[in-house]
Amino acid sequence: MATLSASRALTFAAPLPLDSGQTLEGVQIAYETYGELAADKSNAMLVTHALTGDQYLASTHPITGKPGWWERMVGPGKPIDTSRYYVICANVIGSCMGSTGPASIAPDGQPYAMRFPVITIRDMVRGLVGLLDGMGIERLHAIVGGSMGGMQALSLAANWPDRAERVLVIASTSRHSAQNIAFHELGRQAIMADPNWQDGDYYASGASPDAGLAVARMAAHITYLSEDGLTDKFGRNLQDRDTKSFGFDADFQVESYLRYQGSGFTRRFDANSYLYITRAMDYFDLAEEHGGRLANAFAGSQARFCLVSFDSDWLYPTAESRHVVHALNAAGAAVSFVELSAPYGHDSFLLDVSALDRVVKGFVE
Amino acid sequence: MATLSASRALTFAAPLPLDSGQTLEGVQIAYETYGELAADKSNAMLVTHALTGDQYLASTHPITGKPGWWERMVGPGKPIDTSRYYVICANVIGSCMGSTGPASIAPDGQPYAMRFPVITIRDMVRGLVGLLDGMGIERLHAIVGGSMGGMQALSLAANWPDRAERVLVIASTSRHSAQNIAFHELGRQAIMADPNWQDGDYYASGASPDAGLAVARMAAHITYLSEDGLTDKFGRNLQDRDTKSFGFDADFQVESYLRYQGSGFTRRFDANSYLYITRAMDYFDLAEEHGGRLANAFAGSQARFCLVSFDSDWLYPTAESRHVVHALNAAGAAVSFVELSAPYGHDSFLLDVSALDRVVKGFVE
Repeated sequence: MATLSASRALTFAAPLPLDSGQTLEGVQIAYETYGELAADKSNAMLVTHALTGDQYLASTHPITGKPGWWERMVGPGKPIDTSRYYVICANVIGSCMGSTGPASIAPDGQPYAMRFPVITIRDMVRGLVGLLDGMGIERLHAIVGGSMGGMQALSLAANWPDRAERVLVIASTSRHSAQNIAFHELGRQAIMADPNWQDGDYYASGASPDAGLAVARMAAHITYLSEDGLTDKFGRNLQDRDTKSFGFDADFQVESYLRYQGSGFTRRFDANSYLYITRAMDYFDLAEEHGGRLANAFAGSQARFCLVSFDSDWLYPTAESRHVVHALNAAGAAVSFVELSAPYGHDSFLLDVSALDRVVKGFVE
Repeated sequence: MATLSASRALTFAAPLPLDSGQTLEGVQIAYETYGELAADKSNAMLVTHALTGDQYLASTHPITGKPGWWERMVGPGKPIDTSRYYVICANVIGSCMGSTGPASIAPDGQPYAMRFPVITIRDMVRGLVGLLDGMGIERLHAIVGGSMGGMQALSLAANWPDRAERVLVIASTSRHSAQNIAFHELGRQAIMADPNWQDGDYYASGASPDAGLAVARMAAHITYLSEDGLTDKFGRNLQDRDTKSFGFDADFQVESYLRYQGSGFTRRFDANSYLYITRAMDYFDLAEEHGGRLANAFAGSQARFCLVSFDSDWLYPTAESRHVVHALNAAGAAVSFVELSAPYGHDSFLLDVSALDRVVKGFVE
């Protein structure tokens, strides 16, 4: 079905079927690997990325020049030990770092833009399973994902139950709540309100909807941090000044920080990808896919599961992880669950939380 | 200092001094009154409004045609009983319903736009005190405000301690947190990113930054509702359809609701006013104004205070009200405090919460 190219990308020979009923031709999956694959292919792990993440898990990002997004967790001697495991991380379809997405060229020679089909989390996982097929990896030692990465891990466990022995889901959920959808819709409206968006057909225009995308990123960023974390980090501290300006400059450090987050993001991310991936997350409801009962999703699963939540995460609070754990229990699956205390909110899964290191290391070994 | 016009607006003869050091000439305060002022003027109450509120407290809004924003609370026989009290509600300066704001005509004959001075909550209260002066009301029976209205009530109590006998502060705070500032900054950036904003000079252009303002309103609106309230009201229910569209229409009811809130708001509110009023709220820190110690703000106050919070309010959570109560206690002021249980989040102060009716009625009588 697939041919492996030299550029760490795999192109599917067969069209990829999607939940919408559409198919996607010539899908490419861009990926990175870390460590060595054992001869019997028994040591492969898949790490799945979050909304704005990518395959640069533990290597330098080619656009930003920054370290990989989970270098603290993945590497030789680290909790996900690349001297023992072969760790794969692939860009999801719909994204913009080499895998097929709205910025990709459609069969007619023009970018898909909004002609790209609306995809789901399960469609993303279809792409990842296609990659594993192409690599000849039938069974993962583990799949590990935080946030949207956790949704992919749950979707793989539910829909391809034989493909992973261990499923580690961090700071995630089995469904998007009304509040989750509301924040994403806000971001989408900000992008679509930007005149440079031009109904998505901006690729040849020389201008992209950066202002709208920056606002969307700012909104999302607020949800990634806890109120206490924001207060500890910024409080009401002023930025580079002793007194208020009585103007509309970024007087407060938190304003300056948000503006920086927003503008920096537009250099590495495609606005249409933001629309499609948030839509996929909003559509995610694993119970709905399985007859309205979440336990059905895991019936007969032989995998071992571990769910991790953070007490300061108000985006996907502990109750969401507990909801998954109850369903796994009802399905008779092997599951462990831990709520970690960390001050950083949802972003805790990416930050320096040593307790998470221990949980990850303990579970994947 | 002031002359009362027939159109329920008062124009100040003297310039209004502002916290920025600037002054504002010819300030007009638009207001509504309900009930009859007693001969000795002892029955006057001032109700202060929230960010996007106005003077149409208990009478039909002239633009939307909707009932006043607190008709459930204010009227004959209601908790704030207009058969007993003379209830005043005035549009704050910086707003857009008749009081002087960025859309007003400056002395040079052009709209102020961004030449309007940055104002503070205390400046708004200066305007309200000027109105009371113009009406010859030296001492209010009570000042009552929710959200930004509560900030004004606290500011009056701190800076004009003899002007109110009773101070009722609902779902409010003595300072804006980093998260509060972050959400407002997001809204401001959305407005400023709208090309129709034109650095604020859009009044003569025939186009206003409605798209940006709608996004700002959507962001704020999410903060006014609790997660549980959103789940109860909308959950993941689809809007006017049985299945997902696999497109970018408002599939979910919560999306449709937010779009409606955003677009409806632009018909009645000025984008520059949104910038100025959010800035005033972000600048608000009553302790900072009083030597860094909140109790100093209330030293020697003879007023009676009541603070009310809602357990589902994550914008100004109960801890913020408790913080004010502790300061009032430290200052030796008379204060009562109640946290009410209500499912609606911050917006509870505007909605059908019968326990609030009883608290308000009991306190103001």
